[in-house]
Amino acid sequence: MTTAPRLLLASASWGRKKILSEAGLDFGTQVSSVDEDLVLAEAEATHGSQSPAQTALLLARAKAENVASHEHPAGTLVLGCDSVFELNGMAYGKPHTTAVARERWHQLSGATGILHSGHWLIDVSNPQEARGEVSSTIVHFATVSPAEIEAYVASGEPLPCAGAFTIDGLASAFIHSIEGNYQNVVGLDVSVLRKLLDQNGTAITELWK
Amino acid sequence: MTTAPRLLLASASWGRKKILSEAGLDFGTQVSSVDEDLVLAEAEATHGSQSPAQTALLLARAKAENVASHEHPAGTLVLGCDSVFELNGMAYGKPHTTAVARERWHQLSGATGILHSGHWLIDVSNPQEARGEVSSTIVHFATVSPAEIEAYVASGEPLPCAGAFTIDGLASAFIHSIEGNYQNVVGLDVSVLRKLLDQNGTAITELWK
Repeated sequence: MTTAPRLLLASASWGRKKILSEAGLDFGTQVSSVDEDLVLAEAEATHGSQSPAQTALLLARAKAENVASHEHPAGTLVLGCDSVFELNGMAYGKPHTTAVARERWHQLSGATGILHSGHWLIDVSNPQEARGEVSSTIVHFATVSPAEIEAYVASGEPLPCAGAFTIDGLASAFIHSIEGNYQNVVGLDVSVLRKLLDQNGTAITELWK
Repeated sequence: MTTAPRLLLASASWGRKKILSEAGLDFGTQVSSVDEDLVLAEAEATHGSQSPAQTALLLARAKAENVASHEHPAGTLVLGCDSVFELNGMAYGKPHTTAVARERWHQLSGATGILHSGHWLIDVSNPQEARGEVSSTIVHFATVSPAEIEAYVASGEPLPCAGAFTIDGLASAFIHSIEGNYQNVVGLDVSVLRKLLDQNGTAITELWK
């Protein structure tokens, strides 16, 4: 018996921690040390160009495997996640600067994108049966004015966000609708986690606080 | 000039306050005193049976008009909201008891419902141009086990919720996907609020804190 939470999130993402907390789950976090560019480059060298969905699953798996390779109590379930935003077939990451965020929003206004989140779950006591799934949510953006874009970019909120938007923040006003799982847009589809846990023989309700 | 927030939410709903806060809006709240059953009965006597969407708009308007009838600073924008959950053409409210919540979830498992939220915005300085809109979001529920239903009902979380579910709580694990606006499921579509404000000549960014 251990008092450490069974679920271990291989991520420092504030959004993912919020989702797991709101879903009532008992979990710990351990940040992975993965060189994402290297992982992607190796995959592309071996398997050719990776789609945004493939990239999200690849990096989720790399993060989970990195954290699972450390010492953990028996039965620990390591969850790796990675999100990639796709617009017109291209993958977009964090804008980092106001100039890039502004340019991005002139593309997003009135457009439709897809947020892919990869999920990879490893039971450290049974690592050969690790499994993963990508969840893809279509996001429809409202047509926004240049003044709204300036105000949003000036808030600083989009700079550290994949896709340059926050569906659970100021940009909620600018997102008309979605098709797919909501929490997935923030970075973690709880219904997919439930399914992966189920395939492991664990009911998600067992992990409720 | 006044220091009171221009936006006044005619609701005590915790979920709606959370949405407006996360959307970065400066707002006050004033709870309406509307006899919802009476309002609905009067409408049905005059106009016949009201659909779930019509009911949501009717009650949103009644709440907004009730609060707007009190004294407010010039330019105050009163927002009324009401949510109705529709399953198989029937409107469902809060289950209140564990027995009703359990019965409801045996219907929800694997089913698809619609969450309608009515929105009504009144500028107290220009009340004849009040306007409203209903936003309807389709909600697809996962197939859940009897044990999961028992655990969820025992948590108490569904009892005070229209439709007996919490998309931003424990039930996030049981909701596969949605089609439409996410915040609308919690009770207030921020993109609809943006549109209503816009028609009033107010950019939502002006209300950001």
